[in-house]
Parts: sequence; C-alpha cells; structure tokens
Amino acid sequence: MVLHMDLGDRGYDIRVERGGLDRAGEWLNLNRRVLIVTDDGVPTAYAARIAAQCKEPLTVVLPQGEGSKSLASLELLCDKMLQAGFTRSDCVVAVGGGVMGDLAGFAASCYMRGIDFYNVPTTLLSQVDSSIGGKVAVNLSGVKNCVGAFYQPKAVLIDPDTLGTLPARQIASGMAEALKMALTSDAELFSIFERGEAYDRIEEVIISSLKIKKYVVEQDEREGGLRRILNYGHTLGHGVESAQALHGVYHGECVALGMIPMCSDAVRARLLPILKDLGLPVSLSTDPETVLGFVSHDKKCQGDRISVIYVPEVGGFEIQAVDVTAFCDRVRPILASMI
Amino acid sequence: MVLHMDLGDRGYDIRVERGGLDRAGEWLNLNRRVLIVTDDGVPTAYAARIAAQCKEPLTVVLPQGEGSKSLASLELLCDKMLQAGFTRSDCVVAVGGGVMGDLAGFAASCYMRGIDFYNVPTTLLSQVDSSIGGKVAVNLSGVKNCVGAFYQPKAVLIDPDTLGTLPARQIASGMAEALKMALTSDAELFSIFERGEAYDRIEEVIISSLKIKKYVVEQDEREGGLRRILNYGHTLGHGVESAQALHGVYHGECVALGMIPMCSDAVRARLLPILKDLGLPVSLSTDPETVLGFVSHDKKCQGDRISVIYVPEVGGFEIQAVDVTAFCDRVRPILASMI
Repeated sequence: MVLHMDLGDRGYDIRVERGGLDRAGEWLNLNRRVLIVTDDGVPTAYAARIAAQCKEPLTVVLPQGEGSKSLASLELLCDKMLQAGFTRSDCVVAVGGGVMGDLAGFAASCYMRGIDFYNVPTTLLSQVDSSIGGKVAVNLSGVKNCVGAFYQPKAVLIDPDTLGTLPARQIASGMAEALKMALTSDAELFSIFERGEAYDRIEEVIISSLKIKKYVVEQDEREGGLRRILNYGHTLGHGVESAQALHGVYHGECVALGMIPMCSDAVRARLLPILKDLGLPVSLSTDPETVLGFVSHDKKCQGDRISVIYVPEVGGFEIQAVDVTAFCDRVRPILASMI
Repeated sequence: MVLHMDLGDRGYDIRVERGGLDRAGEWLNLNRRVLIVTDDGVPTAYAARIAAQCKEPLTVVLPQGEGSKSLASLELLCDKMLQAGFTRSDCVVAVGGGVMGDLAGFAASCYMRGIDFYNVPTTLLSQVDSSIGGKVAVNLSGVKNCVGAFYQPKAVLIDPDTLGTLPARQIASGMAEALKMALTSDAELFSIFERGEAYDRIEEVIISSLKIKKYVVEQDEREGGLRRILNYGHTLGHGVESAQALHGVYHGECVALGMIPMCSDAVRARLLPILKDLGLPVSLSTDPETVLGFVSHDKKCQGDRISVIYVPEVGGFEIQAVDVTAFCDRVRPILASMI
C-alpha cells in the first residue's frame, strides 16, 4: 500500500508493507554510501537487515532516548559521513522511532547542504505521526526541537511487523496519536477504537492516521494554519511531559492526558473508556498547577495569546485563540478532577 | 539602487546605497527582537548603528576568522536567542564579511526551523559574492561549508561606504571575485578593470557583479548547472588555499591564482597586468604538487571526474568535465611557470 505525498518537487512515497524491511532495496536507492542511524533500543536486526541491502552501509548506534537529539549527535553523524567520504549523492536512513527520524533527518538536511533522507520508522508513534511532515530537529538547552529544518524525506518505509517487538506501553503511546487524529478528523477511525478493534486492525489504524496527516501536511507544509490540528492534546500534553519529565513518561501518554480537558463532556465520556482500554493514563500524577506553570511559561514566549484545538464532537474541531491565563483558568478544574 | 532576486516566494531585494547603514530600519523590519551577529574585525560602529534602529537588539561579537564558522558558534547563537526569548517572528542580522553571513544565516535557517535573516555585508568580497546565493554553512573538521543549508535572506543591504575602513588587501581580495564574474560573463566589466578604473568605479563594479550573480542564482538556485561558473578559479584556488592555509592567505588571492591557469593564453596576457595592478598575487609561494595534492584529494571524494570552468575569451566560458589526473597533468606546467 503506497500513499504519495503531493508536495511538488518535494513529493515522496510512503509505503506500508509487512516484511518491507527486507525489500527496502527495491524501493529505496541503497546502491551508494548509506549512513544508517539507529539507537540501542531498536532491535539490531532491523538496521542489519537494511544494511544487508546497501552497497556501502555505515551504521551508527546512538543511546536510546531524547538525549540523542542534540547538536553533539548532529556533529557526530556529519563527522562520520565526512570521514567515510560521503558526497552529495549519498544518503541517510533512519531506523527507529521519532528521535532517530528527527536527528537523522536533520543531519541529512544539512550535510553538504542536504542529501537524500529515507525514514524507516519502527515504532507505532513514529509510523502514524513523525514519519511524515518534514519536520526535523534537535533539542537545545532542554527546549524540544529548538534547532532544525523543514526537510522532506525521499521516501518512508513502514513495516508493521516491526511493532511485534515493541513493548505494550510504547504501542499504547502510538495509539494515543492515532486516536488524536480520529478525534479531530475521522469518526470512522474513532469507531474502530470505540469497538476495541484498534490492536487487531493496526494496519488500518496506521493507514487512516497517515491519510489524515498527509492531507493536513499537503494543505499546510510549513505550519500556517490547518497543521495546528496535529497539536490537538499537545498544549497540555507538553505541560504534563515537562512536569513529569523525570518519571519516564511517554509522549503519547501525555497527549492522551492533554486531550481529556480539550473536548466536550459528551466526547470525553466516549474518550475515557477508550484510553483505559488502550492502557493509557486517564489520571494526573502531578499537581495541575505545575502542569499549567509549564504551559504558561512555554506559551508566554510566543505572546500572551495561544491557539488551542477543541473537539466539540468526534471527527470535528475548533481552533480557538485564547489568552493563556484564561485558558489555564478554564482547564484548571478539569485537570483537578483528573487527580 | 535595488535589485530584486526573482526566486518566487523566496524572492528578496538587494539594496546598494551609500550611507544605507543608518537607514536600515526603513527597509528591514527591525521592530522586533533582532540578533546582530558581527566579529571583532568589523568596526563596532557598524553593528551599533544597526542596533540603534532595532526595537530589541542583541549583539554577539565573535572572533574574526574562519574559526568562527563552527557548530559551536551555531550553538552559541541559538542559545543566545533562546535565552532572550526569540520566537519565530524575530530575526537575525549579519554585519560583516562572508564568515558572519554564512554563520548567522545558518543560525537563522535552523533556529525554530527558520526565522527571518537579513544580510548586511561590509567587505567587498561579501558584497559582490557571498551576500547573495542563499548558501549558508559552517565548517566541520577542516572541511569548508560541510554543514549548512540553502536559505535565502529576507533582504540584503550593501553600504559601499563601509569599504572605507577596509584594509587594501581585503579590498583586492574582493576585486578578485568581481574580476572572476567579469571574465566568464561580462566583457564590459572586464574593461573597467583593464582601464584601471575599478577602484574609482567601485559601486558600478559591485552592481555589475551582483547582476551576474543574480542571473546565475535565479537560473540555478540549488547548484545543478550554470551556477558552476561562480566556481571559476576555485578548483585550483581551494587547492592554493589549503596549501597555504597557515600563511594567512586571503580567499580572493587564491581565486586570483586559481584563474591564471584556467584561461587561454590571450586572456592570460590581459589578466596578469590587471591582477598586478589590483595588488593581487600572480606567483605561487607553494610547490605546485602540494596544491594539486589538495585538488586531487578534494575532488576524488566526488568521483574521479570533475567539472572545471575554462575561459577561452573574455566574457565567455566552457564547462569542461575532466578526469582529475588529466586535469592535474594539464595545469601542472602552468603552475610550475608561476613560481
């Protein structure tokens, strides 16, 4: 199954295929120097299976986690390519989750001012979300994605079989992002979740999510308008993520929590059982004021007004421009009820 | 005098105006947070005059020289912006030569995935050459421009009065790049040099050079074809630059030397007196084999064949695809005659 991203001369194919990892060479041009970027949380066999199909593979394994999304890692990757004689005609392949995609994509975007980048996401979260969109970046001084670029991959290869080795909690985290897409844009996808069939129909969940993201990104490649709906649940979600940073919380778990206050009571009544069913959190383990403190600090930097996404009914959304303080006042009681 | 770069939604104006430094606020949107990037070789008054016109200026002064074009400087600039609360709506202004433009432009291209960048080049070399083209970068492990992006400025402001404080040798270095443009593309500009009027008619030299570069970049924004003519004199020039790196040689001086073997005897006979007249070198102070060693190593990385530009008659050029070894054999005797 192939989805084509219509972005003019930056367009590319996203291929979803079980067992696709072993056929990468058919769809990606690996007949050159290939830097494979992966982390030690990804089964080594995945990178090895890609490497086996490359003319001149060079694999770099970084430590798992957000810490690898740094300018230091960027320098390391560029230096590896330089030492191995990579030219503008060579390429980079990311094999792993969103952290690897963001880092490797940024390295590809700036090595020699840009070489080909292929993304092979192996987590559900990256398969449904970060594998498309063209946003690549590293973190700086604790600020996520502070330094980066808009850079489209040449192709994305999604092999749902890689999810077989993924811990249940990571799968659930990815489901939260798919559910986010369903809530704002796809009542049918939502009903798959509501009927408890998301795990059995995971390929469908991936493809439906990709179709929503594809549409949004094609409409708004550089984040002027519609793309904001992809941030549903993220304003509060990032606040939760910062507040609970030391407790090993997952991104999708934070998004799950962030969506709860941002919908009508009727939607929330349908959402909560799904979250519980997926094994996602529905209650806060942090003081709401700490969460709101981060939200307010984060957003203050962008002026006093913020855009937030609200879901009045499943499959629809409102973009609301609100004052940060008023926003915090509004969600405070709901967050308090979630403790 | 304004030249508009026709690059679609990445188009921008280049303004050449004596005293323009004090009117920057009329043409650039400085009514926001502005990071001014300059170095300690640039008169401090230049950055200060820009800062006086900004709503919230933040000036960073880096050490003069190629050493500042590093990922460490990039991190420093992004960190400064982050600490000062720069958002996507703020901007960066480079005040200085090509090093500052390349570094500050790259920082602007990747801070928050891209904020506005204005270039205020204050050396002749950067005014005629690096101020347009959209190539921004830093060096890595001794390789020039290894990590960077294609990123167009929002505007370029050239104040020829800034050349008044520039050492003669730096002016001559800039003249070499203007002469390069004349040789491949503009017999009329060449005749200004030939008549010894380049210094007196410097504004015309700048504008004619910009027009050539404008045309080339508009035809070939990302370096597929025509843009190669801007590399005239640079294949050997880079070799000289590497070979004499420790002797404080200037880029334009190396380009001057690099052009000499790459034209017909008739052109060379007209070129040499001009170079001498401008105070540019016409003889090598290094062993030709050292120069060719660097050329060959540099180019080998891009495959065995290279593209070089040859000028058979003033105002014209040939793009020649040649084998590196054959190329070295061809220019060796001419380099030997230049000792």
